[in-house]
Amino acid sequence: MKRIKTAVIGAAGYTGGELLRLLVHHPNVDLMYAHSNSQKGKKVTNSHPDLLGDTELVFTDEVSTEGIEAVFLGLPHGQTKGFLENHSFGSDTVIIDLSTDFRDESNGFTYGLPEINKAKIKNAKKIANPGCFATGIQLALAPAIAKGLVNDNVHVSGITGSTGAGKSLSETSHFSYRLSNMSVYKLFTHQHLKEIKQTFSQLNKDFNSDLLFVPYRGNFARGIWITAYFPFEGELEEALEIYSEFYKNDPFTHVSENDIDLKQVVNTNKCFLHIQKENGQLVIYSAIDNLLKGASGQAVQNFNLAFGLDEKTGLNLKSIAF
Amino acid sequence: MKRIKTAVIGAAGYTGGELLRLLVHHPNVDLMYAHSNSQKGKKVTNSHPDLLGDTELVFTDEVSTEGIEAVFLGLPHGQTKGFLENHSFGSDTVIIDLSTDFRDESNGFTYGLPEINKAKIKNAKKIANPGCFATGIQLALAPAIAKGLVNDNVHVSGITGSTGAGKSLSETSHFSYRLSNMSVYKLFTHQHLKEIKQTFSQLNKDFNSDLLFVPYRGNFARGIWITAYFPFEGELEEALEIYSEFYKNDPFTHVSENDIDLKQVVNTNKCFLHIQKENGQLVIYSAIDNLLKGASGQAVQNFNLAFGLDEKTGLNLKSIAF
Amino acid sequence: MKRIKTAVIGAAGYTGGELLRLLVHHPNVDLMYAHSNSQKGKKVTNSHPDLLGDTELVFTDEVSTEGIEAVFLGLPHGQTKGFLENHSFGSDTVIIDLSTDFRDESNGFTYGLPEINKAKIKNAKKIANPGCFATGIQLALAPAIAKGLVNDNVHVSGITGSTGAGKSLSETSHFSYRLSNMSVYKLFTHQHLKEIKQTFSQLNKDFNSDLLFVPYRGNFARGIWITAYFPFEGELEEALEIYSEFYKNDPFTHVSENDIDLKQVVNTNKCFLHIQKENGQLVIYSAIDNLLKGASGQAVQNFNLAFGLDEKTGLNLKSIAF
Amino acid sequence: MKRIKTAVIGAAGYTGGELLRLLVHHPNVDLMYAHSNSQKGKKVTNSHPDLLGDTELVFTDEVSTEGIEAVFLGLPHGQTKGFLENHSFGSDTVIIDLSTDFRDESNGFTYGLPEINKAKIKNAKKIANPGCFATGIQLALAPAIAKGLVNDNVHVSGITGSTGAGKSLSETSHFSYRLSNMSVYKLFTHQHLKEIKQTFSQLNKDFNSDLLFVPYRGNFARGIWITAYFPFEGELEEALEIYSEFYKNDPFTHVSENDIDLKQVVNTNKCFLHIQKENGQLVIYSAIDNLLKGASGQAVQNFNLAFGLDEKTGLNLKSIAF
Repeated sequence: MKRIKTAVIGAAGYTGGELLRLLVHHPNVDLMYAHSNSQKGKKVTNSHPDLLGDTELVFTDEVSTEGIEAVFLGLPHGQTKGFLENHSFGSDTVIIDLSTDFRDESNGFTYGLPEINKAKIKNAKKIANPGCFATGIQLALAPAIAKGLVNDNVHVSGITGSTGAGKSLSETSHFSYRLSNMSVYKLFTHQHLKEIKQTFSQLNKDFNSDLLFVPYRGNFARGIWITAYFPFEGELEEALEIYSEFYKNDPFTHVSENDIDLKQVVNTNKCFLHIQKENGQLVIYSAIDNLLKGASGQAVQNFNLAFGLDEKTGLNLKSIAF
Repeated sequence: MKRIKTAVIGAAGYTGGELLRLLVHHPNVDLMYAHSNSQKGKKVTNSHPDLLGDTELVFTDEVSTEGIEAVFLGLPHGQTKGFLENHSFGSDTVIIDLSTDFRDESNGFTYGLPEINKAKIKNAKKIANPGCFATGIQLALAPAIAKGLVNDNVHVSGITGSTGAGKSLSETSHFSYRLSNMSVYKLFTHQHLKEIKQTFSQLNKDFNSDLLFVPYRGNFARGIWITAYFPFEGELEEALEIYSEFYKNDPFTHVSENDIDLKQVVNTNKCFLHIQKENGQLVIYSAIDNLLKGASGQAVQNFNLAFGLDEKTGLNLKSIAF
Repeated sequence: MKRIKTAVIGAAGYTGGELLRLLVHHPNVDLMYAHSNSQKGKKVTNSHPDLLGDTELVFTDEVSTEGIEAVFLGLPHGQTKGFLENHSFGSDTVIIDLSTDFRDESNGFTYGLPEINKAKIKNAKKIANPGCFATGIQLALAPAIAKGLVNDNVHVSGITGSTGAGKSLSETSHFSYRLSNMSVYKLFTHQHLKEIKQTFSQLNKDFNSDLLFVPYRGNFARGIWITAYFPFEGELEEALEIYSEFYKNDPFTHVSENDIDLKQVVNTNKCFLHIQKENGQLVIYSAIDNLLKGASGQAVQNFNLAFGLDEKTGLNLKSIAF
Repeated sequence: MKRIKTAVIGAAGYTGGELLRLLVHHPNVDLMYAHSNSQKGKKVTNSHPDLLGDTELVFTDEVSTEGIEAVFLGLPHGQTKGFLENHSFGSDTVIIDLSTDFRDESNGFTYGLPEINKAKIKNAKKIANPGCFATGIQLALAPAIAKGLVNDNVHVSGITGSTGAGKSLSETSHFSYRLSNMSVYKLFTHQHLKEIKQTFSQLNKDFNSDLLFVPYRGNFARGIWITAYFPFEGELEEALEIYSEFYKNDPFTHVSENDIDLKQVVNTNKCFLHIQKENGQLVIYSAIDNLLKGASGQAVQNFNLAFGLDEKTGLNLKSIAF
């Protein structure tokens, strides 16, 4: 079995930890090191105690590039560019960046949304992993936009779990504040709109509708829920066929006949969609786990594609269900 | 001090219990009896154990009308009409119905939203208390609609606590299902839209925009959050003045200068609003406690108005805050 | 009606805010100022936004002592002593300190647990308000210890809401960590054991049993649950009579015949107890709201007692119930 | 690769669903059918919607025994005996029962706690899978009891997630009740004490201490936390060595050097232990996922052992972590 020498940079944060959780059990991965400046010399299980019994790794702050075939970058937004300037990985090394830095596909990066860019990802060496809200919204709307169904404003409400805001402490991540609470932030201006619009323009050069996106802070830890709708004169069946056709080769993205709820996908790499036609609108719900399909799971999916592995390798994850 | 002989019908459910919690400490209320068919003969504290120390009342299934000056009806939707046909309260008795049955203002009922109908409520003997989502949405939009600012579709997302669905057990009220979960129900067809549109037509006979309302099941017990928006060419300041003027005599409804969050109003009779102008849209957030301003608290507010008491009597409630 | 000129020092924190929530509606209180060094010049509603509509107060960092009849001290533990050395309140001013600093009854302070010390509190000018766990545990055990029923180890497990740890951010107060989680801290060594043992020695000079107290971090925001048990050869009825007699004049502390749960008391100043005899042990459960009966509510109760008011004034609080 | 023809009886409930989640990805399992009387003819994804994309199975109410090599029984407690009388599986079929019915090791069943009975399980055809609380408590105490360290009462508090009570609706499983709540049930009399004491007698025939077990209903969905302690005169190091030695061949059970919390094991088959010596007591914490190590995960572990597979096959599960 092929074993790929793999490193994780910025491995002490939430997405870094989630990567380690996946990689320690990935059959094709040789995890060479887990990098962290702040935790150097400490056991990985110190930061990610759930990994006790799975790994004896100790964080290092040294970045070895020699012989590394794949590297995941889990650095804070804005730091990847500088990092790559200071560390030269081989030209064959597959670099998968989880930050926002190269989602504009600059510097030779490919936008790593497999449902849209699978062929390109298979040949890519540099992959910019999408944002979590961006993944949920794009998977909700891509088939409709590609087919030219969307010719008016799209209204989107989205609710994110607290892990979307990372490990750092803030007023809105305080348990006493957030428990049983609800609030909105970055109304209509969420930073993920940029990469979303880029993809939609690529899918359909005539697309120029507005996306009015209301992002909610949800009082749960993991998951993203999206409700998106736009005026649609066609029949529901037509839309269902378009979506079904669009995702027919995508093993993680499924259109459910039944109503969906968020916990169906939590702790998996899946995206579940459900579609309704009501009041002259086509309404699409999508649900993902923000740390998996919205971050580290999708990163591993991109890794699998880039190395010619089965897309699901290491990603047959048991949902939390309850 | 004036003491009003008061009864609660259907006192074993969620809204009935919440009425009792308010009425046992209301300085102008003589609570004559708490009625329940299912719990007759049992202590009120058996159904509402938090009232231990506050009341020794025992549920009765007898409906005495003699001498009753005020009666709150907390019966299941659809049962109030039959109940009133079978039990004749005096013509001076103030009847406050919490069900949907008379929200169409049939049979001489006044729609009991004080911010809109205060003058009428002060003279009413029959008051139909608004629904919870209906309260949150109307308070978010009434000033704008009354002033004719709304000439296009209004987009509304709303999130309700589990108590909105009452005491009965169902799959979606199971703790294991609902915890950390999110889902949508009754998309664009929620039953409260009817009373909302009725009010909006009364406020502005030219209003005929569509309300596209996405109701979410929230994973918290108490509270309703509303985000509503529509295209608006004016300035934010203009809107703020309109809202401020509209609610200037309403002691529970406040426009906050700062961002709001749901828990600021939970366990109170308040409605907090916050307004933004963004991307050509006027966006209004509103937050209420579904069992108080959305049900039993507003019922007591209506009771106060109908009896010429200070509107806030018995309703200076401490918020849960955390 | 008597109006007492009252100040709150350290009013920006959790217990300070909870005091303000109570005092703005207390009929005998003239709230003179709310003090905070960190928030000086800012509106009180900036720190405690739920108070919008209830107060226009602005925080001050000046400590006026002139004419102040009552002062609540909500300073961090360890700072009260220095504060009182620097600020001389009148000898008639009632000082109620919520910190740990004078719970040893040094410097003329009376330990402010009304169920134990009511007579002394009525004549006290300096009151040291008990800790939250300390209140729950003492109310669970005081009657048994006073009667000499306890002659062996007492086993106590207690679960606290996150607000017990205050406003500051920490790893264990991060929402992503604490949600749906459980853990133990300060095993057998919780700092409240000191004041608990002091009271128990006062109640019964022969009491010298050990208290083995396991404190849990609960994944809720408000409330404390205590389960305490010790070997007991008597009958349950005997214990029930002792408890009933002990608390017969205490309007907030009730022994329930039925099983209790935590939310019955959340957002109230009540303590509910339930007692079982099982397996040769007398088992007492107690439930309080940590910020009310465990802090600010009890402080107001002490204020009422010290000023000869009805003990319940301003404390007829509606429980959250759900 | 060996493929074992496997059936699940009672597959529509919580433990049945959790079995299916594990078995659909188990490399050695051919899932022949999923049985349910109530759901016959319906898709498995109707009851367990998170499995969309993983299985096309339809529930059957027919029990085929022909060629079945392994059968998991997820029937309600008390129904397994009758079921096995009515359906004759082959003498080589491995039967793993998740109910309480044969935990007394009657009818040739082996008690399926691998950390205690691994050798027997490897040769067993009939395995009685332990209860969830029973697993958590036994793993916390077994090494100490086997070594004769326990000579006095053992005090245990345990907190369970709501899924422990299964799919059925009840007052205490209502979201509005259970959220942010805490309560105790079956004080000192929990039904799992029977199987716990049986094991402890087998480990140490002189063991006759009392277990005083306080079970709490926790306000989370998955997981069990146990705190157990007893007087201990030895050193902590001695205890750590005993535990480390006892579990040295157990890949899921780990003694952590650091404090543990519940979510470290949620959604895994692990048991984490942490040990302290304090106040003359040896204190052991244990944490498991009640549906995995406490039910279906352990059932698959037993299946692996009975078929000579690596004990961890199909059980390298990613923890929820947050």
